[in-house]
Amino acid sequence: MTDKPRRISVVLFDGFELLDVFGPVELFSLAPSRLAIEFIGPQAGPVASSQGVQVSATTGYGTAEAPDIMLIPGGQGTRRLVNDETFLSWLRAWVARASLVTSVCTGSAVLAAAGLLDGYRATSNKAAFNWVRQQSDKVEWIARARWVEDRDRWTSSGIAAGIDMAAALLANLFGNDVAHEVTTRAEIEIHRDPTWDPFATIHGFAE
Amino acid sequence: MTDKPRRISVVLFDGFELLDVFGPVELFSLAPSRLAIEFIGPQAGPVASSQGVQVSATTGYGTAEAPDIMLIPGGQGTRRLVNDETFLSWLRAWVARASLVTSVCTGSAVLAAAGLLDGYRATSNKAAFNWVRQQSDKVEWIARARWVEDRDRWTSSGIAAGIDMAAALLANLFGNDVAHEVTTRAEIEIHRDPTWDPFATIHGFAE
Repeated sequence: MTDKPRRISVVLFDGFELLDVFGPVELFSLAPSRLAIEFIGPQAGPVASSQGVQVSATTGYGTAEAPDIMLIPGGQGTRRLVNDETFLSWLRAWVARASLVTSVCTGSAVLAAAGLLDGYRATSNKAAFNWVRQQSDKVEWIARARWVEDRDRWTSSGIAAGIDMAAALLANLFGNDVAHEVTTRAEIEIHRDPTWDPFATIHGFAE
Repeated sequence: MTDKPRRISVVLFDGFELLDVFGPVELFSLAPSRLAIEFIGPQAGPVASSQGVQVSATTGYGTAEAPDIMLIPGGQGTRRLVNDETFLSWLRAWVARASLVTSVCTGSAVLAAAGLLDGYRATSNKAAFNWVRQQSDKVEWIARARWVEDRDRWTSSGIAAGIDMAAALLANLFGNDVAHEVTTRAEIEIHRDPTWDPFATIHGFAE
């Protein structure tokens, strides 16, 4: 590998969900020559997860370089962010030139509230799906999906679904062999079918 | 629930593997009335993961209350810890009265080096398995296992295997309904068979 690694910027906020972040980040980190990961928070320093435990952001929102690939997780904090116009304005401006905007779980509610999914197909956590789709009627919400890829927007279903989306993203960016090597190192069995979604059924979404 | 939550103490160290910790912690945190989670580090404050990102320990080794349930992750840092007699002595004393000692990935190498798996069956990461079993010949190392339960010692295979072990632990402690509720909320499909281990085959362990 002589190519420069692609940069992936993970947005942290008070009340982010741990596994939404660290499932994908674990896989991305197992391809270190290909992806460099940075964590953006309200300011550099500790950010409290939904679970309480704090994770250190390396850069604050105000000083973060515009992203190449961006990932926003879900978590209880998204309930506040969808109404936080200051945050949503920053997010819109910050990701304007991103090559790829991705979300896990209710992270897509925040993207939708910012208008960043207008005209796109997208999915989200199934337990929270009715709340999520209230955030925008300009999104084609897909209830039965492990994740949805639509051009430069990739959105996943709840929590662990982000791991499957991350594996698909590695395959898309760097090929199946890289994705397979990473998931083997992580000793994880991946769902490769984006329409696999038993949780849609559990939550009563038949479509 | 009127019972007091069980306490689970997660040991952090420089170079711990992110998903080894946050896979199980995500599941444990989805049963908040049943499990209280604390993070023990060299000192209270930021601890660097194998991936670089820092996570805040709430308590230092020297001041941590003796654990009820304990979990130690793997990661690059375990290569150093197996030779760190100060750490191993502290660990032995600290967990002496724990009701349950658990590990993910190469965390079992550290337990073995401390003598805490003497006379037990145990497993570990398959890519690192030959190194791990050199840490003690008093352990019955099981190559083909997603996780191994042996009395008050539960050890899992690499990285993502900790999530399956955590689900089994929730079922063991609180019943199948609780485990099912948690894994449904996490939108995760769990392996319930502790002998499921395609990664043993990939790494040439036929036993």
